[in-house]
Amino acid sequence: MDKVKIVALKESVLEDNNQDAQNLRDELQSRGICLLNLMSSPGSGKTTTLLALNKAFAGRLRWGVMEADIDSAVDAQAIQDAGIPAVQLHTGGMCHLDADMTRQGIAALGMENAELIVLENIGNLVCPAEFDTGAAINMTILSVPEGDDKPAKYPLMYETCDILVVNKIDTLPVFDFDKARVERDARIRNPKIEIFYISAKTGEGVQVLADTLVSKVKEWILK
Amino acid sequence: MDKVKIVALKESVLEDNNQDAQNLRDELQSRGICLLNLMSSPGSGKTTTLLALNKAFAGRLRWGVMEADIDSAVDAQAIQDAGIPAVQLHTGGMCHLDADMTRQGIAALGMENAELIVLENIGNLVCPAEFDTGAAINMTILSVPEGDDKPAKYPLMYETCDILVVNKIDTLPVFDFDKARVERDARIRNPKIEIFYISAKTGEGVQVLADTLVSKVKEWILK
Repeated sequence: MDKVKIVALKESVLEDNNQDAQNLRDELQSRGICLLNLMSSPGSGKTTTLLALNKAFAGRLRWGVMEADIDSAVDAQAIQDAGIPAVQLHTGGMCHLDADMTRQGIAALGMENAELIVLENIGNLVCPAEFDTGAAINMTILSVPEGDDKPAKYPLMYETCDILVVNKIDTLPVFDFDKARVERDARIRNPKIEIFYISAKTGEGVQVLADTLVSKVKEWILK
Repeated sequence: MDKVKIVALKESVLEDNNQDAQNLRDELQSRGICLLNLMSSPGSGKTTTLLALNKAFAGRLRWGVMEADIDSAVDAQAIQDAGIPAVQLHTGGMCHLDADMTRQGIAALGMENAELIVLENIGNLVCPAEFDTGAAINMTILSVPEGDDKPAKYPLMYETCDILVVNKIDTLPVFDFDKARVERDARIRNPKIEIFYISAKTGEGVQVLADTLVSKVKEWILK
């Protein structure tokens, strides 16, 4: 297997990230590319979820992945080894990506014909939620072992996201996790949030999420 | 039960956090107070670990807890309900605490006779590791469900910490988690790091950790 490409991102010099993010979103739409920004705590299962989605996409999307990390290339390597175009982005200690860093990543991925590009953001529930990356879809994963109090504690993440994926539901019998509390606290912040329950490990629930994403991507591209 | 005190922290105006942190550390030592900075991902079990430690301390330490969060007061309330003096610190969206914010928290806690004050930092493996809070002991928790790749992915956290607590070891049979990998990757970054395995839920391993902390606090106070 080939070694994955690693790109060191440069810090942005632009002052107005919101404007820059809107420009990137418009540019991507005109190129027929839907950008999905995937955020979560460390260890919620972002990469495993992407691998499970790849199977469930079943070739319906041309897609690629940008893996952002402080260090290491384990995630991008795992994605690339599954046959998905991938690039590893190193942020040099930065705790989030902004639109300009995302743009550097898209250029490095170099997939002109992609319909979907996923940015796997730094594992962090705080800072990534504060920076618009230019994504058309913002999605967060909450894994059952993290506990049901996360929407109450990290409200901006849930306000920002269109989709909440509750992962590792195969471990529900092992942990005290109140689904109703999660749904209530997330919807207080964001009444429109769509919630899916999956186990990326066993595959439970993944097909429904994959079908929804395929629809949303096609809809965005045709908009 | 009484409602817990909530304090909104002000952002620091000081430019040199490292110097300010050293000043705070010296001041606390002269007052006979050991500050422990507890860091981890969201949902690793920081609060549950503190509750388990309280039982295992068995009255050997006068101690209190500062719970830092973006929002909510669930953690400080749980600590206070267990009979431990506690204060909830709200960071107003900030992803970490620096020394000056920690100083504000200590003042709000108002425990002149404390031997140990624990700062439960924002759940975040990135930013809190970058800011010296003035703590005498830095401790991080990695929970088994988060996975064994965290020391490779978030190196600064493990470089910064004196103690690594691997929590939720009761779930080891449910997850693929390679202890040897964690120990190797953590020690590459920090050969001196002390590693403990516990389940805050079942109590396994907590006594050894509690005894170690009691010794370290007494040693620091007498230094």
